[in-house]
Amino acid sequence: MTYSQAILGGDRLALARLLTQVENDVPESRTALIELFPHTGKAHLIGVTGAPGTGKSSLVNQLALYYRKTKEKRVAIIAVDPSSPFTGGAVLGDRVRMRDLSGDTGVFIRSMATRGSLGGLAQSTANMAQVFDAAGFDIVIIETVGAGQSEVDVARLAHTTLVVEAPGLGDDIQAIKAGILEIADILVINKSDRPGVENTEKALKSMLELAHPTERVFQHHGQSMRTAAPRQDSSSAPMWIPPIQRTVATEGKGIAELAESIALHVAYLTQSGGWGLRERARLEVELEALIREKLLNRFREDVPQKRYDEILEKVIQRNISPWEAVRMLIDK
Amino acid sequence: MTYSQAILGGDRLALARLLTQVENDVPESRTALIELFPHTGKAHLIGVTGAPGTGKSSLVNQLALYYRKTKEKRVAIIAVDPSSPFTGGAVLGDRVRMRDLSGDTGVFIRSMATRGSLGGLAQSTANMAQVFDAAGFDIVIIETVGAGQSEVDVARLAHTTLVVEAPGLGDDIQAIKAGILEIADILVINKSDRPGVENTEKALKSMLELAHPTERVFQHHGQSMRTAAPRQDSSSAPMWIPPIQRTVATEGKGIAELAESIALHVAYLTQSGGWGLRERARLEVELEALIREKLLNRFREDVPQKRYDEILEKVIQRNISPWEAVRMLIDK
Repeated sequence: MTYSQAILGGDRLALARLLTQVENDVPESRTALIELFPHTGKAHLIGVTGAPGTGKSSLVNQLALYYRKTKEKRVAIIAVDPSSPFTGGAVLGDRVRMRDLSGDTGVFIRSMATRGSLGGLAQSTANMAQVFDAAGFDIVIIETVGAGQSEVDVARLAHTTLVVEAPGLGDDIQAIKAGILEIADILVINKSDRPGVENTEKALKSMLELAHPTERVFQHHGQSMRTAAPRQDSSSAPMWIPPIQRTVATEGKGIAELAESIALHVAYLTQSGGWGLRERARLEVELEALIREKLLNRFREDVPQKRYDEILEKVIQRNISPWEAVRMLIDK
Repeated sequence: MTYSQAILGGDRLALARLLTQVENDVPESRTALIELFPHTGKAHLIGVTGAPGTGKSSLVNQLALYYRKTKEKRVAIIAVDPSSPFTGGAVLGDRVRMRDLSGDTGVFIRSMATRGSLGGLAQSTANMAQVFDAAGFDIVIIETVGAGQSEVDVARLAHTTLVVEAPGLGDDIQAIKAGILEIADILVINKSDRPGVENTEKALKSMLELAHPTERVFQHHGQSMRTAAPRQDSSSAPMWIPPIQRTVATEGKGIAELAESIALHVAYLTQSGGWGLRERARLEVELEALIREKLLNRFREDVPQKRYDEILEKVIQRNISPWEAVRMLIDK
């Protein structure tokens, strides 16, 4: 029986081994990935991102528990920590989570610290998500730290992206990043029993207004943003307004409501055709990353190391510019 | 007179125009970059990174003022905001800075929000730094937000990297990222008049101990870490211990001491050969990025769009895997 057959048959050990191979980008993992690929496309990929200290891990934990117990879904968690390129920062989070989720075969948790390039990280995450998808996990939660381009890249893998904030984290509105807000499908204010929650929500609302100017009308009518009723935009397609959801993950508060928002987003994506668009965008990004990798590998095979080193040395001596070096190496 | 001649002659307008072209990656900018390249290699590149709310911009501002007034250095500032992939988050910071620094021809400030890929951002930043270097700026400060892979990439451009923290930003030590700490040449605790500064310094010190275990001895002897006296490691080369520097940028406190630490780091790099190693590493990364770009461009010229789209469609339909698609597109 091949690796992929074992995984399709529910073998957790084979799954764990393949995930390690995928994370380390071992060449042999490719065969299994290719064989598993036709079995992908069923899972709901949920991205969860936010600054350190927002309680993302607890939230993901609670959400996974909720899906397990209430909906009987099989849930995989990929915890990515791009902020720790040298040390494995995601390990502790795993241990904490284990207490609540270990022993349940319907849950699989995997953490990954950044190694090598960022492109590599997004690629490994995408591949891991595919493995879980093929292995029959209904929901794959991709958790990532911080608020940089890396999170945007990882979030682009997901169908639904949750951005987690918490009251009193920063000095002011600066802590809520404009960029990260714009990738949010759902905004979560975790630790919402803390002082300052009103300010956090107000700040998020005004940033949402900047991002979705017509929403002001929506708010002026006094409706809750939480329901995020579909609206008509100029192209007459329904439009999604990111709802703001308060939670206290450590006490399980707001989790059911959050899961409901997520379900609404899935319904919205399905109706609007957004699901297919996100799938397409994701696979396009993945294909391009693989093409880049292949091209570079072929270049490395074609150009002798000695010649590369000689030309690099000329650049370092400022005899030729990097652009001229590329011409000498490729356009020969 | 060509662009590059104008810039070498001190024409600020030509400089501003070229920087815009470089940021937008306009093909014409290449000629100027190639012509300017032999004139690079003199500037000291200083990277400044840290979470939002640490007061990085004020710190960079004060440092630039200090170098202008005390050392008569020409200073360029490149403010990169990788956290705002969609909106230009760095604009406001510029305006604030302008009050103190505008009108001084020895200072040039440029901000850049993320566009396109992260690789592109590091590349644009590197090119901008080269332009400033060739134009005769003695110091180029590259300021960037957050604590992700993007900052690591940007920091790798610099000879000296400052990581800025501030008391009371996060709930706990979580806010100080292990990864970012390891790229720090100098640690700055800005806003050090705030409560909690002792805790921040303690947290930084213990994280430094983890990163440099032998340092404990150094600390136990009660010496100030600020002077960061060179030590012998097993390879008998002197080793740099990141000093911790307290500042209150808004009041100009600690800036002279910080500048002194930076000068010590330059001396260390020069003595140890680290300067040359960092230059080499930077140019190697740059060359590889250009090679990747060139290879992808050539691929796009070689493969008709129609064929690419057909194969992508097969991937989306799960008829073939992305890896098989690459083989069909490249190995034909």
